[in-house]
Amino acid sequence: MAPRSLLALLALAASAGALNVVRNKNFGKLQGGYLFPEIGRRRTAFAEKNPELAEKIISLGIGDTTKPIPEHILSGLVNGAKKLGTVEGYSGYGAEQGKGDLREKIAASCYGDRVKASEVFVSDGAKCDISRLQLMFGSDVVSAVQDPSYPVYVDTSVMMGQTGEVNKETGQFDKLVYMPCAAADDFFPDLAKVPRADVYYFCSPNNPTGAVATRAQLEALVARALKDGSILVFDAAYAPFIRSEGTPTSIFEIEGSRQCAIEVNSFSKYAGFTGARLGWTVVPDELTYSDGSSVRDDFNRVMTTGFNGASNIVQEGGMACLDPEGKKEIDTLIDYYLGNAEILRGLADDLGLDHYGGVDSPYVFVDLKGHSSWDTFSTILEEAQVVTIPGAGFGPGGEGYLRFSAFAPREACLEARERISKIDIFKGQ
Amino acid sequence: MAPRSLLALLALAASAGALNVVRNKNFGKLQGGYLFPEIGRRRTAFAEKNPELAEKIISLGIGDTTKPIPEHILSGLVNGAKKLGTVEGYSGYGAEQGKGDLREKIAASCYGDRVKASEVFVSDGAKCDISRLQLMFGSDVVSAVQDPSYPVYVDTSVMMGQTGEVNKETGQFDKLVYMPCAAADDFFPDLAKVPRADVYYFCSPNNPTGAVATRAQLEALVARALKDGSILVFDAAYAPFIRSEGTPTSIFEIEGSRQCAIEVNSFSKYAGFTGARLGWTVVPDELTYSDGSSVRDDFNRVMTTGFNGASNIVQEGGMACLDPEGKKEIDTLIDYYLGNAEILRGLADDLGLDHYGGVDSPYVFVDLKGHSSWDTFSTILEEAQVVTIPGAGFGPGGEGYLRFSAFAPREACLEARERISKIDIFKGQ
Repeated sequence: MAPRSLLALLALAASAGALNVVRNKNFGKLQGGYLFPEIGRRRTAFAEKNPELAEKIISLGIGDTTKPIPEHILSGLVNGAKKLGTVEGYSGYGAEQGKGDLREKIAASCYGDRVKASEVFVSDGAKCDISRLQLMFGSDVVSAVQDPSYPVYVDTSVMMGQTGEVNKETGQFDKLVYMPCAAADDFFPDLAKVPRADVYYFCSPNNPTGAVATRAQLEALVARALKDGSILVFDAAYAPFIRSEGTPTSIFEIEGSRQCAIEVNSFSKYAGFTGARLGWTVVPDELTYSDGSSVRDDFNRVMTTGFNGASNIVQEGGMACLDPEGKKEIDTLIDYYLGNAEILRGLADDLGLDHYGGVDSPYVFVDLKGHSSWDTFSTILEEAQVVTIPGAGFGPGGEGYLRFSAFAPREACLEARERISKIDIFKGQ
Repeated sequence: MAPRSLLALLALAASAGALNVVRNKNFGKLQGGYLFPEIGRRRTAFAEKNPELAEKIISLGIGDTTKPIPEHILSGLVNGAKKLGTVEGYSGYGAEQGKGDLREKIAASCYGDRVKASEVFVSDGAKCDISRLQLMFGSDVVSAVQDPSYPVYVDTSVMMGQTGEVNKETGQFDKLVYMPCAAADDFFPDLAKVPRADVYYFCSPNNPTGAVATRAQLEALVARALKDGSILVFDAAYAPFIRSEGTPTSIFEIEGSRQCAIEVNSFSKYAGFTGARLGWTVVPDELTYSDGSSVRDDFNRVMTTGFNGASNIVQEGGMACLDPEGKKEIDTLIDYYLGNAEILRGLADDLGLDHYGGVDSPYVFVDLKGHSSWDTFSTILEEAQVVTIPGAGFGPGGEGYLRFSAFAPREACLEARERISKIDIFKGQ
């Protein structure tokens, strides 16, 4: 037993200084905070400085659903909760990979015969799965990301130690491969110019550009991954927004994909589960590392060791999503958000600015004609009390663009269009 | 666009061989599968081989709650789900660190004035938080674990690359510090013999030994961490099982702990949330790495970048747990499981075996007098159709012991006692 005086003395000494533990050097490489909390911070700062305007703030920012969960899907969630109060219905730990019936339903309903239930890992969301995929890949792989892209791909690569320091001039991390996705190329990378990487992250419908890859583009991506012997992590979180006939909604519609692709997906955006938390990842059995070991088995190890399954309540909601009634409700939700996207495209038209996305996609990406995206973000917040997202937050390639999110109430979109179209969004620039 | 024939050719070539991606070498170091799925696998294999006995199987194995969630807490979950169906009640993404009111309630209810709400990170469980803490610490720290211990500390250290290979003779990983916890020392390590580590993992009430650290022992632990300038990760997932007066239920009851400790906690075991998923981690502001940077800030970065918040539905359940009615319900649940623990201690008495834990703790750790824990596990499964957990699954120091879990229906504990006390559990050894 340590005498109290010694403890107090040690605590005093400790409080005066730092621990003798070295900070994970990869965390020092990260730039600023994670994007979306930073947006929230600026919004809060504005509201505190302008309390009289605080109530007026409208968000077209973070891609957060706002419509209540419809009846049938809700009944899945409510019954999932109620069951836990009965002896017959109670369940504790489930399989870390998800309930068997949900895995089967996802495989059948979302992939036809292309994916086996045992290849589906149910989780608490796509963002969390990307982090777990990175934990599996480890620090020795080279990752490639679209520029601009959802910041989680970059940030988790940095956190895992796959990258060097950021280059202050380009804003790019050393040892990370950037795939420039410019408007002139429909936001699809010129693959001939992309150096080889071990893992390619690709998102379609894209966040933030709203671009939707065509079948031909996805075939080119798969061909490239196969040629390189690389893994293509395909983020399909917005897939059900695709309404155009013939556009693939899963990478597994592409021949050869089972030999190279992992697909990350989520109920967040189309069933309103952003807060409820439910997603999944598909890892085909065919994927093996260069030593012949199974990628699926390593992902299974991550899921069983560092995760404990998605909430059993929410998994019941997922089952309801995939019922015919649930699918109809999802279609109605998507109609609503795509209607919003049309309004936001109209807003960009009002401003006389080129815009992309908003068709088959909830995001509208607006070309600011070379103006600063953070400055324009600030002006719109200050002058119109509307929160948007600066393109630069998605990487250097996003500079000069602004993202509007259609995940807002209809009235908010109409009001935002009304307000923003009246102001000079480039004021002072 | 890649012509179809080329794609098919590439796919064919790929299917014939492995990817050109090197497996994360740390995953190759892991031994077998994660313990609890392995137990499940053996149980299933037994049931398939002996279908006539399958229905008879009783589990005293994995620490999985079996009692339905009581009324008041359940109403929190059900209302949490129902709210999502209303315009006023709907919420999407919340703060990744948890709802503000829940963080405040945890800080006030579980820690009095010792912890600030901003230091509480709400999550989907203690296991997941340990994995995220490891991601934060990175590969360059030296971790120390109790031997035996909850396998997640070891496995996540290996996965993060903190260790070398396993020593086949000792079963211990190179570069990982083991703190032997033997029955003769009340399962508390002889700290004078423990080499310095950057991070010490310590669990009390302990899984698997059932040992509960005294105030004096916790003071010694804190003193040691302060002396070393190290971080003490204190796993308090079973804290509410402590009924003995004066025994600390949180590391933050110990003077000096705010200068060295992180506490991981969970609603799983006492509110029946093993499947619902809710936990939390406290990182005091005082903790700073050797470069002066804040540990809390780095953990915040992990939580915001690689996680997206616990389910909003389940967080409402957590609020209900901390209401006076919820606390009463939890007390009743704990009474029940502690009653089971007493039956299981009686079973060990019937067998004439020394046993530990089961007081202030849901686990009973039985000394097999030198017999093999996996063999005894198998005999009990085959002869009595009861699933237990072999001590060796918790590390080399657990060999020669068996863990009984009190998280089972009362009748199952009585029936298991009846069955096991009649057989020769060391048959053939």
